[in-house]
Amino acid sequence: MRKILVIGSGKSTSYLLKYLLDKSTSENLFITVGDINISSAQSILKNHTNSNVIQLDVFNDKERSNAIKNADIVISMLPARFHGTVAKDCILHNKHMVTASYVSPEMKALEGKAKSKGIILMNEIGVDPGIDHMSAMQVLDKIRDKGGNIILFESFTGGLVAPESDNNLWNYKFTWNPRNVVTAGQGGTAKFIQENSYKYIPYHRLFRRTEFLDIEGFGRFEAYANRDSLKYQNAYGLSNVRTLYRGTMRRVGFSRAWNIFVTLGMTDDSFTIEDSENMSYRDFTNAFLPYSHKDSVELKLRHELKIDQDDVVWDKLVELDIFNPDKKVVLKNATPAQILQKILMDSWTLSKDDKDMIVMYHKFGYELNGKKYQLDANMVVIGEDQRYTAMAKTVGLPVAIATLAILNGKITSAGVQIPITKEIYEPILQELQQFGILFKEKEVPYLGYNPLNN
Amino acid sequence: MRKILVIGSGKSTSYLLKYLLDKSTSENLFITVGDINISSAQSILKNHTNSNVIQLDVFNDKERSNAIKNADIVISMLPARFHGTVAKDCILHNKHMVTASYVSPEMKALEGKAKSKGIILMNEIGVDPGIDHMSAMQVLDKIRDKGGNIILFESFTGGLVAPESDNNLWNYKFTWNPRNVVTAGQGGTAKFIQENSYKYIPYHRLFRRTEFLDIEGFGRFEAYANRDSLKYQNAYGLSNVRTLYRGTMRRVGFSRAWNIFVTLGMTDDSFTIEDSENMSYRDFTNAFLPYSHKDSVELKLRHELKIDQDDVVWDKLVELDIFNPDKKVVLKNATPAQILQKILMDSWTLSKDDKDMIVMYHKFGYELNGKKYQLDANMVVIGEDQRYTAMAKTVGLPVAIATLAILNGKITSAGVQIPITKEIYEPILQELQQFGILFKEKEVPYLGYNPLNN
Repeated sequence: MRKILVIGSGKSTSYLLKYLLDKSTSENLFITVGDINISSAQSILKNHTNSNVIQLDVFNDKERSNAIKNADIVISMLPARFHGTVAKDCILHNKHMVTASYVSPEMKALEGKAKSKGIILMNEIGVDPGIDHMSAMQVLDKIRDKGGNIILFESFTGGLVAPESDNNLWNYKFTWNPRNVVTAGQGGTAKFIQENSYKYIPYHRLFRRTEFLDIEGFGRFEAYANRDSLKYQNAYGLSNVRTLYRGTMRRVGFSRAWNIFVTLGMTDDSFTIEDSENMSYRDFTNAFLPYSHKDSVELKLRHELKIDQDDVVWDKLVELDIFNPDKKVVLKNATPAQILQKILMDSWTLSKDDKDMIVMYHKFGYELNGKKYQLDANMVVIGEDQRYTAMAKTVGLPVAIATLAILNGKITSAGVQIPITKEIYEPILQELQQFGILFKEKEVPYLGYNPLNN
Repeated sequence: MRKILVIGSGKSTSYLLKYLLDKSTSENLFITVGDINISSAQSILKNHTNSNVIQLDVFNDKERSNAIKNADIVISMLPARFHGTVAKDCILHNKHMVTASYVSPEMKALEGKAKSKGIILMNEIGVDPGIDHMSAMQVLDKIRDKGGNIILFESFTGGLVAPESDNNLWNYKFTWNPRNVVTAGQGGTAKFIQENSYKYIPYHRLFRRTEFLDIEGFGRFEAYANRDSLKYQNAYGLSNVRTLYRGTMRRVGFSRAWNIFVTLGMTDDSFTIEDSENMSYRDFTNAFLPYSHKDSVELKLRHELKIDQDDVVWDKLVELDIFNPDKKVVLKNATPAQILQKILMDSWTLSKDDKDMIVMYHKFGYELNGKKYQLDANMVVIGEDQRYTAMAKTVGLPVAIATLAILNGKITSAGVQIPITKEIYEPILQELQQFGILFKEKEVPYLGYNPLNN
């Protein structure tokens, strides 16, 4: 049997493990899941004969090295910072490796060794990054194959709550790491290209410069710019593109309301608030507003941010209970971001029966025989329940399919890889369709940002 | 003769050297100025018999060590990052040292050695830090001596253009390092205490939360919060104060206009702009605004920041020529802050006959015998010309007076010092009065921030 080692059995492994188990007899697979906490893996694997759960401490060099030595291929579903350690063992023991995470500098540094030993280190093969790469490259290659010249590429992804579980004013719940949502967009000015002009948006304006996207059957969404839209410009072969923009999708109105927290300073993660432990939610809000002996926290906030009496954004704030004088922060030495996260988790945690949703939207603008065209493609995936989420599905299935493809010799290019070549994306996208992960494409009139060019 | 070594002969040494030369005969002083570039020192010292200029490269260990060994006391007017190196030599050769800069962690680490050898390392004895410490501590000690309990301390300083040279709409010119002005307030959320409440202002709101200050004969000023108003809370003995706020003074209206640059992202110093070299000022402005094929940069900026047609803030922007399509940035790989600095230097550089001005304003609130009082104290110093500036005067004179006081055994406490003890501030403030550096004190009704407490 071919032995697959999966290290880490967190939120996004349900579909991954299910897929591998379902194929285990026909494909002759034996799946070992290693984690420091084995209960989650056990409840998914349910003693399946072609599987095994082992306790594995990734910091224990001997345990980790032995487990990797015993496998034919390794999937790391650990937090990204641990992949480098795993990858080094994989190279030592001549094992291929698959992760859904961004290529870190540490991973990139292993390129030479991996190549010389013929080892595949496949990364960024989840949903974002992952399905975004594959689905974009498939269309980009198709357009280029027929002689088209790409002039615009915009790509948007969002992890949201499914419409049937959407019951708050923000149309949002945490479907992934809440911390990343609270600090989203921080760490530098967003940068992109529109009609050959470089554009820059500082963090504190990011959520006020959104654009709208409509998906048939799902209504309208908005998107704010990712920090670095130019990250894959060269990898995608887009060095001469006129417009290049990558963004994050939310339901309309989220960003304008979120901007209130950004403006007040509540998303800051760089310092700790004095005596956070004993603060109420109201005290926390008040700490970002001028002192007054007579005006209420509510009026000060309305005035500071010029929020009209009848602005729906106000109801969004009230819904989160940020003016509550009785609810305590409790967290010791907490940063504003940590406190805000706690407040939001009261309201935005998925209930037992809630479903999540992944949305992705690409726009491709191109010239062909002197004419301009635009192709829009979008994908919507809705989760089944709290274990079999859309997130776990769209992250886990590409990882699983890629793993099998490597085992079966269908993916063969050694080195540090991301899924942007036909060899990789074609069979994976093909198979994902069977699981309902597919893009709807639609030719639309070319829009761009300058109609005079059209 | 007592030998004083002054290392560094930049902008702020004119009054310092003049003071020492004027006293050189009566006090039996010989002043050696060491700098890598000797022309500035030569033009101030003018071959005075009690002085000498030497070429000194602070990176040359032998040159530096020899010069220090030959002196009785050392003044470092170098950029702050070099003081540590000088201080180590001073300890080695048993010399006292004086600087106008903030105590760095490197300097602080020398405390033990300095104390054990009886060496005085006097720091923060310029204007801000310096005169602010001394003038504040003098009043604080006076209030405490009569039994008062300090409940409020607010302190504000500004380096501005003198009224007679004030001829632009911003009422501002660069009188000190322009780079520090462009990046002022960056690096973290501002923190202070008002009526026992900790308050936090993120950078992007800093210039919208100002307060006004009036100085008789000089009109109205505004102030924005310094990053850490609590820095000297313990040093000043204010651990139980209800209100503690330190700020930077500008003329009214400066901050609201400056906030436009902050909001757009033009003060960011953390990334470089693409092709900055070939940009016009207009291109630079446009890079922070949405793309449009038809709307002007002007209208986009007005719309983005909701600037009314008749708002005076608009004229301030126009005055700086930020919409000029012909003026080129020229700077290669420049950050937004560097480009903005260049644009501002076109407009805000002092002309040959311009004078600068230093303003300082303290508010002291205290309780005495069950009643609340407030004492306001302010200082205005106006420069003579471009060499004998108010900045050079208020920085250089305290340094010079302190140096002589150490030589004469009037300041004796060894170790890393800042001028907050009576021994230090009393004689220095006394002597500064002869040079017109003095505070006007005024009893006013206690205001605080909560009239219900009064």
